[in-house]
Amino acid sequence: MDYKELSLIKHQEWHGKIEVISRAPLSTKDDLSTAYTPGVAQPCLEIAASPEKAYTYTRKGNLVAVISDGSAVLGLGNIGGLAGMPVMEGKSILFKRFGGVDAFPICLDTQDTDEIIKTIVNIAPCFGGINLEDISAPRCFEIERALIEKLDIPVFHDDQHGTAIVVLAAIINSLKLAGKKLEDITVCISGAGAAGSAICRLLLSVGVKDILMTGSKGIIYKGMEGLDSNKKELSELTNKRGIRGGLKEAMVGADVFIGVSKGGLVTGEMIESMAKNSIVFAMANPVPEIFPDEAKKHGALVVGTGRSDYPNQVNNVLAFPGIFRGALDVRARRITEKMKISAAYALAGLVSSSELNPDYVLPGAFDERVAPAIAQSVRSCKE
Amino acid sequence: MDYKELSLIKHQEWHGKIEVISRAPLSTKDDLSTAYTPGVAQPCLEIAASPEKAYTYTRKGNLVAVISDGSAVLGLGNIGGLAGMPVMEGKSILFKRFGGVDAFPICLDTQDTDEIIKTIVNIAPCFGGINLEDISAPRCFEIERALIEKLDIPVFHDDQHGTAIVVLAAIINSLKLAGKKLEDITVCISGAGAAGSAICRLLLSVGVKDILMTGSKGIIYKGMEGLDSNKKELSELTNKRGIRGGLKEAMVGADVFIGVSKGGLVTGEMIESMAKNSIVFAMANPVPEIFPDEAKKHGALVVGTGRSDYPNQVNNVLAFPGIFRGALDVRARRITEKMKISAAYALAGLVSSSELNPDYVLPGAFDERVAPAIAQSVRSCKE
Repeated sequence: MDYKELSLIKHQEWHGKIEVISRAPLSTKDDLSTAYTPGVAQPCLEIAASPEKAYTYTRKGNLVAVISDGSAVLGLGNIGGLAGMPVMEGKSILFKRFGGVDAFPICLDTQDTDEIIKTIVNIAPCFGGINLEDISAPRCFEIERALIEKLDIPVFHDDQHGTAIVVLAAIINSLKLAGKKLEDITVCISGAGAAGSAICRLLLSVGVKDILMTGSKGIIYKGMEGLDSNKKELSELTNKRGIRGGLKEAMVGADVFIGVSKGGLVTGEMIESMAKNSIVFAMANPVPEIFPDEAKKHGALVVGTGRSDYPNQVNNVLAFPGIFRGALDVRARRITEKMKISAAYALAGLVSSSELNPDYVLPGAFDERVAPAIAQSVRSCKE
Repeated sequence: MDYKELSLIKHQEWHGKIEVISRAPLSTKDDLSTAYTPGVAQPCLEIAASPEKAYTYTRKGNLVAVISDGSAVLGLGNIGGLAGMPVMEGKSILFKRFGGVDAFPICLDTQDTDEIIKTIVNIAPCFGGINLEDISAPRCFEIERALIEKLDIPVFHDDQHGTAIVVLAAIINSLKLAGKKLEDITVCISGAGAAGSAICRLLLSVGVKDILMTGSKGIIYKGMEGLDSNKKELSELTNKRGIRGGLKEAMVGADVFIGVSKGGLVTGEMIESMAKNSIVFAMANPVPEIFPDEAKKHGALVVGTGRSDYPNQVNNVLAFPGIFRGALDVRARRITEKMKISAAYALAGLVSSSELNPDYVLPGAFDERVAPAIAQSVRSCKE
């Protein structure tokens, strides 16, 4: 049986991957009177008087909404909120498994930016955090920005920042093997969507100076026509050398290639045009921009993908459970840039120098040290 | 320790009464590949092609949202969505305990009718049903009506219909003791809010002909000034004899008194003015319109309240878990009038004629036959 068939059988068997259970006993009349009326009036009154007591008397402080409008689900594109539900349920159980966070899937029936913002603000009170998921660019940027402004709980678009944190950790460790420093490298990012944009911004904030980004119309440059507001912003932060052309031109001399675009875009020749000891993260799914064997054959030192069947999997599950665990623990109002950077270094630090090698620059998904280490790094950043 | 103090201690200890857990194993790489990427893409594609498959591959079919804007929480009034969360969590675990339904609390940050409707429509895809809770009248009527029209899943305002179903069951059994028939009785309902209105409508639909309702301005009558659209509708359905006055006048000669109003409104004298073998359900909480001992002393045959420390507790938990269990089982699009009536008769039928007596007209909250019997009655009504 192939994995697709197995997945359908298992999903039918599970009949949903989440379940909502009770933490309070309900066996006697007294149980009912305490958990429900009349006893329940007391915590209500306490919260009405001091809203922060919701963190004491309800699940709010451990509850994250995994919200999607289904506009950019996995590699499947715009399949809508309902069809994205298996992913949101999957994400929710990963939160619980790795971070001890109760997460609940919310699949939206609208793809209108303003409606999404309003809806999330309206349902926010019962949650301690909002994880945005699989919302297409550039709408995702506006939605996240508006929610961060309006809400007093952390809002995190995982496709952006989760990916960026894990990629940064992978680059930090890969550079140790290549003997290069963040400040000195040239990075080529293929794909200027949610992930590419966030990776670019996070790299800039840790001191990377020379980044080229390519989108569907080639290398992004200052003054380029037809850029949306996100890409316009990126055009002013990247490509300081004013290079023009496509992906081929962008990769010449690059120390690091980051692919968050389409399978098969990169040839062996393009890898050969990169700097010595090049680092390649080809994360298009399921077919990467270039397969690891091919990239290595043409001179890449470290190669990673988004797949679990090759070394160095860039897997968001390494980041988001610990990020939210830490943020919820200290009731952080925001996931700050400092937290993301700190999380990336914490993740990278779990690979000891004696273990570090081109096929092991990131801990595995089941490394139980990961979420606690990231959570600790996030907690330590709370201002 | 009094129950108020105990409730706070317990709520703090529970740290939330709900928890979201995983139904899928997540121990191995293969587990991850099946429950999450890449395997999860398959159920997504299936649902994108045939939306009803969400019932097969996700939790939708067993998932109910317990939604409140906190505008009319218990007897506490308008304390807002967040402060209502302990009640919504409590309701959610009752759904699970008695109906096997996964229910999730959604506490709204808006009390605007249109915003509430839009928000609920926007988050509806992941749910198999919507339970509205503690939303003040008359807004609750408009919200429920609009949602029933817009959504293809059952929408049920429990404060209205849950209460009405249990009251109807109680009356059915009480009338057996009084030797009277639904068609012949005169009913006085004190309180024209959510519960009172729904009780009135359900009684009319089972053949009760003579109902008087009293609100804050006395007996409602046709042509009365200053009625909202709900009360205007009720004014045309009730008070066929054109009686004017207050609660005192309304109760004269009544066979049944139903109080969903305020504690202490009813005197012994008023009970004495009722018909022989009178039936009194005084459900104001925590202080009933009249206490059972007092009502009995003045001639009432059957007395019930909303309290668990007196006989004949009218407790919504007798209805909503079974109602949704049944509706979800057959994927009913609506909770119909027929289902509600059928549920009331099923509930009444659980008290055998040999057990029936003035202190036992309703099964207890922990009678494990209740939810299955109601669920079966609802399933059998599916068209």
